[in-house]
Amino acid sequence: MSPEEIAVLDANSAFYRAFARRDLPALEAAWARGPAVACIHPGWDVLRGRDEVMASWRSILEGDPPAIACAEAAAEVLGDVAWVTCREIVPGGPSLVATNVFVREDGAWRLVLHHGGMVAQERPERPPGARA
Amino acid sequence: MSPEEIAVLDANSAFYRAFARRDLPALEAAWARGPAVACIHPGWDVLRGRDEVMASWRSILEGDPPAIACAEAAAEVLGDVAWVTCREIVPGGPSLVATNVFVREDGAWRLVLHHGGMVAQERPERPPGARA
Repeated sequence: MSPEEIAVLDANSAFYRAFARRDLPALEAAWARGPAVACIHPGWDVLRGRDEVMASWRSILEGDPPAIACAEAAAEVLGDVAWVTCREIVPGGPSLVATNVFVREDGAWRLVLHHGGMVAQERPERPPGARA
Repeated sequence: MSPEEIAVLDANSAFYRAFARRDLPALEAAWARGPAVACIHPGWDVLRGRDEVMASWRSILEGDPPAIACAEAAAEVLGDVAWVTCREIVPGGPSLVATNVFVREDGAWRLVLHHGGMVAQERPERPPGARA
């Protein structure tokens, strides 16, 4: 694994640690300031822009969320962009999977996109809406 | 919108067009050869590597899938990487949302990551597993 991939996985871990600790300042610090950010929580529509995305995290943290842990994270880095896919482990909860896109900003890897989604208990044989 | 953003949205459209036409060669051409690719279909776990990802698309196309159309696509470009968020419109089906990450490969924008997920009918107030 390259030093850059390790740095990206560290940034990914810091994001989940901030969430698990319900640490809003750390969560805000994990997200990019510059580029347009976007976030898709499981079952939600796309949220765009830092204000809307941060408001969603504030609202979620106020709701006493479970301490989600990240597992099986894999990072790819190309230039100043990196993307991570990982499992999100919810204690006693559903199985989740996530895509996290990072950009290098002021020398640090910061989130520009988080997309979390649920994994069905059994793998669907067809995409939603497919005809049998 | 920059010429690069337009080129990325064109590549994103070509991906959905290939799917709607059940055109496997066009779908295969939409995906990157070089970097490690990954794909998360709605409700599925992460698929990694071109072989596994392409096998999933072949299997889905054989299942007579609906002609999904893309809407409200927004692209961000940084260097040789771009990421798109969009809605996926399924005729008579559920509401879907997607993240698509592209890299510039041989002068063309090609997919390295597709993550599709369902949007709940009503926006959840809490993340899955959150305590009330």
